[in-house]
Amino acid sequence: MAQFSDLEKAINTLVTQFHSASGSNSSTLKTDEFKNLLSSQMPTLMKGGGSEQGLSEILRKMGVGDGEGISFKHFWNLIQSVATSQYGLLASQMGSSCNCILL
Amino acid sequence: MAQFSDLEKAINTLVTQFHSASGSNSSTLKTDEFKNLLSSQMPTLMKGGGSEQGLSEILRKMGVGDGEGISFKHFWNLIQSVATSQYGLLASQMGSSCNCILL
Repeated sequence: MAQFSDLEKAINTLVTQFHSASGSNSSTLKTDEFKNLLSSQMPTLMKGGGSEQGLSEILRKMGVGDGEGISFKHFWNLIQSVATSQYGLLASQMGSSCNCILL
Repeated sequence: MAQFSDLEKAINTLVTQFHSASGSNSSTLKTDEFKNLLSSQMPTLMKGGGSEQGLSEILRKMGVGDGEGISFKHFWNLIQSVATSQYGLLASQMGSSCNCILL
């Protein structure tokens, strides 16, 4: 197996985490499968969203309709939102010398 | 320091790799800085794009205008494209039982 860079490994992690969360090997995740993924992989997000209402709010922001399965595209919306927040946080920690452009 | 999940670490890697690639602590990367980032972190991508023309093509696909600096948003377009390809590849390896929805 080839040696992968940190960046490549990071992308691979995002992809495989979503894929392995599906028990039924389906194209989308069921709400329960997605909830388990969030609980184990993004506990910070679930701290405020552990309730049914909190989860609904997360799903809504990801663009998931009522009763709809969660696709990789939906999941990617969430990743993008978290990455953008982290980038903003990092930029602000660097002080005013860094005028980072956010998404 | 808190314990982070694999997914959180992966997102963090994406953010910090872009941020640390800027020598001038600027909001955007210069073309040379971005080229160095790709060469070290995404060598596969640079295999076909090591030439000036190949790099121009990559920048164009990321939505970077002529002479423009590379923002985190541009970088994210590239990550999204690579992640989507990887997801498609993974889905096809699973055989026809997985009808994964791509971006």
